[in-house]
Amino acid sequence: MPNPTAAMLVIGDEILSGRTRDANMHHLAQRLTGAGIDLREVRMISDDGDAIVAAVQALSRAYDTVFTSGGIGPTHDDITADNVARAFGVHIDVRDDARALLAAHYARVGHELNAARLRMARIPDGATLIDNPVSIAPGFTIENVHVMAGVPAVFEAMVASVLPTLTGGQPLVSETLEIRRGEGDIAGPLAELAGRYPELSIGSYPFQRDGMFGANIVIRGSDSARVGAAIAELQAAFPV
Amino acid sequence: MPNPTAAMLVIGDEILSGRTRDANMHHLAQRLTGAGIDLREVRMISDDGDAIVAAVQALSRAYDTVFTSGGIGPTHDDITADNVARAFGVHIDVRDDARALLAAHYARVGHELNAARLRMARIPDGATLIDNPVSIAPGFTIENVHVMAGVPAVFEAMVASVLPTLTGGQPLVSETLEIRRGEGDIAGPLAELAGRYPELSIGSYPFQRDGMFGANIVIRGSDSARVGAAIAELQAAFPV
Repeated sequence: MPNPTAAMLVIGDEILSGRTRDANMHHLAQRLTGAGIDLREVRMISDDGDAIVAAVQALSRAYDTVFTSGGIGPTHDDITADNVARAFGVHIDVRDDARALLAAHYARVGHELNAARLRMARIPDGATLIDNPVSIAPGFTIENVHVMAGVPAVFEAMVASVLPTLTGGQPLVSETLEIRRGEGDIAGPLAELAGRYPELSIGSYPFQRDGMFGANIVIRGSDSARVGAAIAELQAAFPV
Repeated sequence: MPNPTAAMLVIGDEILSGRTRDANMHHLAQRLTGAGIDLREVRMISDDGDAIVAAVQALSRAYDTVFTSGGIGPTHDDITADNVARAFGVHIDVRDDARALLAAHYARVGHELNAARLRMARIPDGATLIDNPVSIAPGFTIENVHVMAGVPAVFEAMVASVLPTLTGGQPLVSETLEIRRGEGDIAGPLAELAGRYPELSIGSYPFQRDGMFGANIVIRGSDSARVGAAIAELQAAFPV
């Protein structure tokens, strides 16, 4: 059975303007690979309502699971929750369970639960809350879409909350061999090897270091013996 | 006149598996912002022919300019050029101008121009070559799509080749104010400020550092006096 598929939607002007370098995509990619879920596509879009609706609808239809990050805080540019609700045609308002979480938290830390903070209790009808042990304001799951915060510490905590609820596939084994030859010299033997190991994914990632050209050859598959055999053939073909 | 729009397509299994952290998106985002071109969307997809065709067609229609990175080397998983040609319905083969560049380069460095390396001379009919001062194998421009390498040093050199050929917009001025208060306390005054400066883009990017909550407020616009005035108002509202 093929592994389940996933997509990620990163929402935020700060990423697209180059002000911030996204860290959440790399974290999620590693966690999904470890769980045997294939991350097939990532989209990064700005804080634009129509763009959020279109991307959520397209990704939700095309993949088993979708993760979003960003735009669920208390400020005027936090419009993710409302537009995810719009994407699924459901009503959204401050919900009692989310309000109760925030009320207890802000009472404990001595801050006012003002109108801005109450925005973080806006949850679409039918959604399930995602636990946020870092700063309490919850994410939520609606249909196959998990809506999570953009702040990396919170995003990572929410991924940890959601992942155990998903059905994973067979985790991939991955081995890497560094070959200090130009990719042009490696390509022929590598294509031949890929032909003989059709069940493995064989990728070549060139680098240039101190004026030397080389490539990291990454071989992935669910059968570690086959991965090991392919790596051994490659080592024999390109002795150091 | 609104600024020209752009999208980026990052092609490569190594990014989606979490093995490699993409660096090209952040570089391009900063260069485009500096040139007054609005990067509106980034998509990251795997080395899959149909996915490349679909993404190139969708982004090419939706935005003024598209940049791709990855998948134009000599190995079997380098399938970007052929699928970009397919996306535009044009013929692709080894082209004489690209072959001449590679032949001269490999003669100079004493490597054989073998079948694998010749793959890098496959250029769609009607495309213009993009100069690659780092490792010679060219990128190309077809319609509004610039097809570039994934190796960061080469990608950056190709961006430098392409950018001067594009018509930019008015570069944005950006100022940032760090406010050491929870976003929930900042949100109300910030929304009010955004209402009075409708021509500015005002974003709030929360952080958590040593147990302290705060937010960086970033104000962007083409009129530096207005940006400065809004920042000054914010400083007065939230004295340190």
